[in-house]
Amino acid sequence: MEKLLKEITPKSHDFSQWYVDVIKKADMVDYAPMKGFMVMKPYSYKIWEFIQAAMDQRFWATGHENAYFPLLIPENLLKKEAEHVEGFSAEVAWVTMGGNEVLAERLAVRPTSETIIGHMYSQWIQSYRDLPVLINQWANVMRWEKSTRPFLRTTEFLWQEGHTVHRTETEAVVETIQQLGTYREVIEDELAVPVIEGVKSAGERFAGAVETYTLEALMGDGKALQIATSHFLGQNFAKAFEIRYLDEDGVLKYGWTTSWGSTTRMIGALIMVHGDDKGLRIPPRVAPTQVVIVPIGRGIERDAVIAHATALRDLLASQCRVKLDDRDEFTPGYKFNDWEMRGVPLRIEVGPKDIAQQRVMLCRRDTGEKFAVEERTLVQTVPDILADIQATLFSQAKDYRNRHTHAIQNYQEMAQYDHRGFFLGDWCTDERCADQLKQETAVTIRCLPLDANLSGSGCVVCGKPGVRRALFGRAY
Amino acid sequence: MEKLLKEITPKSHDFSQWYVDVIKKADMVDYAPMKGFMVMKPYSYKIWEFIQAAMDQRFWATGHENAYFPLLIPENLLKKEAEHVEGFSAEVAWVTMGGNEVLAERLAVRPTSETIIGHMYSQWIQSYRDLPVLINQWANVMRWEKSTRPFLRTTEFLWQEGHTVHRTETEAVVETIQQLGTYREVIEDELAVPVIEGVKSAGERFAGAVETYTLEALMGDGKALQIATSHFLGQNFAKAFEIRYLDEDGVLKYGWTTSWGSTTRMIGALIMVHGDDKGLRIPPRVAPTQVVIVPIGRGIERDAVIAHATALRDLLASQCRVKLDDRDEFTPGYKFNDWEMRGVPLRIEVGPKDIAQQRVMLCRRDTGEKFAVEERTLVQTVPDILADIQATLFSQAKDYRNRHTHAIQNYQEMAQYDHRGFFLGDWCTDERCADQLKQETAVTIRCLPLDANLSGSGCVVCGKPGVRRALFGRAY
Repeated sequence: MEKLLKEITPKSHDFSQWYVDVIKKADMVDYAPMKGFMVMKPYSYKIWEFIQAAMDQRFWATGHENAYFPLLIPENLLKKEAEHVEGFSAEVAWVTMGGNEVLAERLAVRPTSETIIGHMYSQWIQSYRDLPVLINQWANVMRWEKSTRPFLRTTEFLWQEGHTVHRTETEAVVETIQQLGTYREVIEDELAVPVIEGVKSAGERFAGAVETYTLEALMGDGKALQIATSHFLGQNFAKAFEIRYLDEDGVLKYGWTTSWGSTTRMIGALIMVHGDDKGLRIPPRVAPTQVVIVPIGRGIERDAVIAHATALRDLLASQCRVKLDDRDEFTPGYKFNDWEMRGVPLRIEVGPKDIAQQRVMLCRRDTGEKFAVEERTLVQTVPDILADIQATLFSQAKDYRNRHTHAIQNYQEMAQYDHRGFFLGDWCTDERCADQLKQETAVTIRCLPLDANLSGSGCVVCGKPGVRRALFGRAY
Repeated sequence: MEKLLKEITPKSHDFSQWYVDVIKKADMVDYAPMKGFMVMKPYSYKIWEFIQAAMDQRFWATGHENAYFPLLIPENLLKKEAEHVEGFSAEVAWVTMGGNEVLAERLAVRPTSETIIGHMYSQWIQSYRDLPVLINQWANVMRWEKSTRPFLRTTEFLWQEGHTVHRTETEAVVETIQQLGTYREVIEDELAVPVIEGVKSAGERFAGAVETYTLEALMGDGKALQIATSHFLGQNFAKAFEIRYLDEDGVLKYGWTTSWGSTTRMIGALIMVHGDDKGLRIPPRVAPTQVVIVPIGRGIERDAVIAHATALRDLLASQCRVKLDDRDEFTPGYKFNDWEMRGVPLRIEVGPKDIAQQRVMLCRRDTGEKFAVEERTLVQTVPDILADIQATLFSQAKDYRNRHTHAIQNYQEMAQYDHRGFFLGDWCTDERCADQLKQETAVTIRCLPLDANLSGSGCVVCGKPGVRRALFGRAY
């Protein structure tokens, strides 16, 4: 019964090892035979499908459509935007042979698709009537990373990348911020992960962007994670790729473009924010299984209990994603641990005594509470409890985040917190201060929060007058 | 008004050119800057999403789950199943560099994933309790093709590939045939494309398969298209990848595997089966826009008509995917042609006279019929008409297919039909007859239909006693 638990390292003891243990034991991923690649098993892929549906619904509601662009990008296209290629060139995987022949020009496996999409848009857009172009793509991308970690940073990963073109600068900025809001909604409402909205400092910007907007979340070990970004690209890519339109006034003008992306990294965030020593805790809205029924009863009682539990499962199936665990090779105790490891939000136990009393035992994964409920009320109760678990996981995470967010006047104060958590402080906006901080403490500027004001106490590094309020942290 | 139509070649005049014209004009695809690659624009990608949903629903109902495996496959894995690598090696694209370094072992961009998935399965499966494994993957794959055609054969394409492992041979064969049935359902019921079910002859089998089941459809030019395949792989891959399980009797046994795939080629079939000289005709179930409302009215009447049409659109929105074309830069006639080109199943025209009479004009894309309908009945009528259009497109396609299917006793008879259409005849099963036929006429054996009986008139090539009834045709 205790076998499963013994196999994972306690979270408090070694967070990194806990993470690796739990994603394997909860059947989320496996390692591929090539370094840096992972397999998303059905249990994690299902979560990804829920995220996709939540995103797609919102993208669609705001006028976006999905499309599909080629995986491979000719080197000459990739090089067209100077900053962009500089930012990505060291991480590109190259196809150099096709069908037994060496290619005349090598082709990059897309690290991101601004270049190939920019090239296509330049041919699709002629008139102001063709704008805005609001297209999203669900795709795999590849970045040849030196050090990898499942979900957070793998050589290949799945994501969506939106690419839009607008008639005016204002419209493009509004789009950039709107899409950040969409990410916030999905990540907070579906994944129950609280985020801080901000803009990146110049040193942390996307290669080729004028402004990068970001959502930053705090993981269970006090490290920060950039969870989704939305980029205002100005006219940089429009100029590099000749994306021009004839305006109503008869003048040929460059478009204003944006791009925005979110990845399977969100699943990593969900794990690191909600997980505990017993394994995953998955928010109900994205849980592949929301409720598991474990029948308790041996010998001659077994068949009657299974029959009862099966009827219960069928009853609940219209209300939630419910599973009956009728495996006979495991004890109830083993099953409890197994489903707790997998983070199933709610467990229903039913045995002969419960049946006689027309009740069941419920056990919440978020709080561990265990209580009896009358069977006839279950159809009403279960959806309410699931909604409450969703809300509780979010408020637990927000409490944790708030407890580990510290206003500071001087970066030395970070040491008392072992450089873990979020730190809010003033910054002079000189990149040399950011560099010094990174060198000395491995702490970086996560973002300049959209809703924070200067304290007036001076730059946390150099003490000179602050120009922007900044969020600091050690990041994944 | 006639501009759009002038731009496409008539179907009867030059089918290939018609196909290329129509997919461009209907905004389905564009060519990427690399030869053989295409971009799926939103209009075709939406059709793909409907197909995906229809497949997923059926896969799920039969116990399958989605997962995601790596894009790249190490050369040594690809080589493990001898026939398989021989079948694919000439078409593989290779990644040889990553992050500015030459890789120690080159990595294939997956042409299909039996090898990498087989490798993973060998680690996941230990006991008979782990079986069956029923996993599907939605992914991009790459085959370095010499000659390409949008949707039908492109260097990169999107598909789903199912990979399953079973305890017994029978179970695996049942799975293979069941999945073929799922394809048949989606392709006939959703895409309205009639298919013939059969098994491939040895010469046309998937590389490494024991038996390949196939669906064959007849295109509008009388050429055949293999539209989806399902493979019984026996123990070939299980042995190559050591997929073994400890059976209940304590004996270590090899599993029995299957794989099955369907691709964006299905969209090509839809176009080539239903399209006409005016452009696409999209079956309502997979039409991105099912109904388009075109307001007719100029000058002072315009605003009132648009307001009325908008109310109509809002009324119908709960019943179907409806769009109002209120563009003021185009005439109604231009809009009629435009939406006919895009294959929208039903058009509603509404003008001042219609409003006065509380009626609208409907025009069906499948038959061209135009008729008045009382406005108050529209909410009931429109879904019925859409269902009728779906059924009519299927029966039109089936009639065409049947009219162009000829029972023959001798392969010379094919010449009178210019080798176009399906031919049913007896075959001795000697591959030399198939080779001779292909050499002389470019006709191949499409499949051995599951429900056909020998005529007894002898092999259509050599005249010797027939062993199997075969379906012949020139294929894409």
